[in-house]
Amino acid sequence: MGIDFTVFKGSSNGDVVQAKGHRDLKPTEVAIKISHCGVCGTDEHFRHADQGLGHEGVGTITEVGSMVPTLSEFRVGDRVGMSWFQKVCGYCDGCVSGHQQQCVNRIEFGTGNHDQGCFGTAVAWDISCLYKVPDEIESEYAGPLMCGGATVWSPLRDFGVKAGARVGVLGVGGLGHLAIQFASKMGMEVVVFSGTESKRQQALGLGASEFYVSGGPGSLDKVKEIEVLLVTASMLPDMKVYLPVMAFGALLFPLTVSTEILQVSPMDLIGKSLTVVGTGTASTASMRAMLRFAAKQGVRPIIEKYPMTLEGVQEAMARLREGKVRYRGVLVAP
Amino acid sequence: MGIDFTVFKGSSNGDVVQAKGHRDLKPTEVAIKISHCGVCGTDEHFRHADQGLGHEGVGTITEVGSMVPTLSEFRVGDRVGMSWFQKVCGYCDGCVSGHQQQCVNRIEFGTGNHDQGCFGTAVAWDISCLYKVPDEIESEYAGPLMCGGATVWSPLRDFGVKAGARVGVLGVGGLGHLAIQFASKMGMEVVVFSGTESKRQQALGLGASEFYVSGGPGSLDKVKEIEVLLVTASMLPDMKVYLPVMAFGALLFPLTVSTEILQVSPMDLIGKSLTVVGTGTASTASMRAMLRFAAKQGVRPIIEKYPMTLEGVQEAMARLREGKVRYRGVLVAP
Repeated sequence: MGIDFTVFKGSSNGDVVQAKGHRDLKPTEVAIKISHCGVCGTDEHFRHADQGLGHEGVGTITEVGSMVPTLSEFRVGDRVGMSWFQKVCGYCDGCVSGHQQQCVNRIEFGTGNHDQGCFGTAVAWDISCLYKVPDEIESEYAGPLMCGGATVWSPLRDFGVKAGARVGVLGVGGLGHLAIQFASKMGMEVVVFSGTESKRQQALGLGASEFYVSGGPGSLDKVKEIEVLLVTASMLPDMKVYLPVMAFGALLFPLTVSTEILQVSPMDLIGKSLTVVGTGTASTASMRAMLRFAAKQGVRPIIEKYPMTLEGVQEAMARLREGKVRYRGVLVAP
Repeated sequence: MGIDFTVFKGSSNGDVVQAKGHRDLKPTEVAIKISHCGVCGTDEHFRHADQGLGHEGVGTITEVGSMVPTLSEFRVGDRVGMSWFQKVCGYCDGCVSGHQQQCVNRIEFGTGNHDQGCFGTAVAWDISCLYKVPDEIESEYAGPLMCGGATVWSPLRDFGVKAGARVGVLGVGGLGHLAIQFASKMGMEVVVFSGTESKRQQALGLGASEFYVSGGPGSLDKVKEIEVLLVTASMLPDMKVYLPVMAFGALLFPLTVSTEILQVSPMDLIGKSLTVVGTGTASTASMRAMLRFAAKQGVRPIIEKYPMTLEGVQEAMARLREGKVRYRGVLVAP
């Protein structure tokens, strides 16, 4: 029993390499044959590590662990999705409060399960972090929702942002193009900031109400203030451009995964009663709600497809690195 | 009618100077004879401006504007307190949502009423930002509650911090010594961080559960994680010391009024689901609740008294600048 798999991993010199692995299922795990996986900017952060890459996986259950049938509805043949988090304990204060993304015992991408990844043929996965893909969502679209989608959904759903709010989306890329869709379908006014005029029509087509090309400080001074700002760009922006556009009491979500210092001072925050929220993906209930919402409301990523082969992984990651992907790469099993 | 007053103001060379002024009352204003005023670090920020100083004033109403009797319960003879905010409109989205500290039409200390200040003999003050001082609180203790007290009260009351939470207080000074009292009397575990061992007994006496002398990064690694951190020090701390002590989902309140960049990255925030909240003083309802709480629960500042004279103002501000005040200076009218 158990599964044998091929996986695409990082390596010390930064080359993606192909490896083999085997897993016997733990009682709360299922085996999943991977059909698709989205390619996220954070995979790049592990390209130099001996780590199976890929955390936007979609596939079909081929085997279930001994406790799975009594604990859950997951069965062989179910189509499921995987995200950044791989296992949560269900017992710590975070988990029992419904904030599983704060689980102190969590295993997440990069901190465990180094031998496997969703860039591969199969994985063993704990059901605490496994999600059924609604029938309405084709597998090739489900992957990018699992991490990228959840990352922009949670700020909009879980932090008191209300319908009608003016929501700024900074950057039209893998995250931004999903944020525009979610926010507009949640009844928010979506105000897009981009570095380039070229994305205007696409942003408006996805649901944006307004589109502005950002320049230096002062370039947005005529924009009506926004109540929320999702920073989805791949690099941190010059906050002097955006702070003046934020309303009193606004929420700032720096979703860009960066170790650079965010350029805001206490005075910036105190003067306008701004709140900066750190958030990644979503709680378990919020993940489930995101998939239902995307299914019913027609939120779908715009994707480029690559084969789930060594060359396909290398090409998809190289294009992402070069900023060429419109808007999310998806690896497809042969 | 109206009032003539003496006021102590900043000036271009940084000297505090004495000046005269006159005010006729607007319909929603009252005249107040000042009896006391706390001395806050932010007064120092206006020492080089032609601005009446002082925003922790306490006094007695001597005259009321034409609309005051029908709009409010304020009457001649009432003992009242004033804070950072001097007038709010009552009409903007912030005001009508109960977030008067976000009023877009607000007049606050330093942005208007340059001719007067609570370092002086009398002020005209709009009743939208005026507070009755409860009988239990002596006037000399009321001043420091109006700004310093409200600034540490609001994070604890208005942002979902619960009884039993572990609340870090960084700095035992004008704000910190009030934060310790409020938090402990709200049923929180108060964990104090100070640069000096010398304040241990006082902090524990005020209600702290734990006291730690902070050193460099790693010096607090054995401290059990905290769920809230109030940064009340006069200068921004090295966040590398404190971030490791913060629990998943913790709230960070940088109350230090500083234009320096707060040294946190998106990764710091995302990794632990931290939220950074910008807040100054409190909403109108929260100000009123703070005064009731302080009255009933016995929260009182520890003060040093100085005469409300030019020399007294100069001495109190100089001692504050030198870090010598334990823990709040209060000017007392002759």
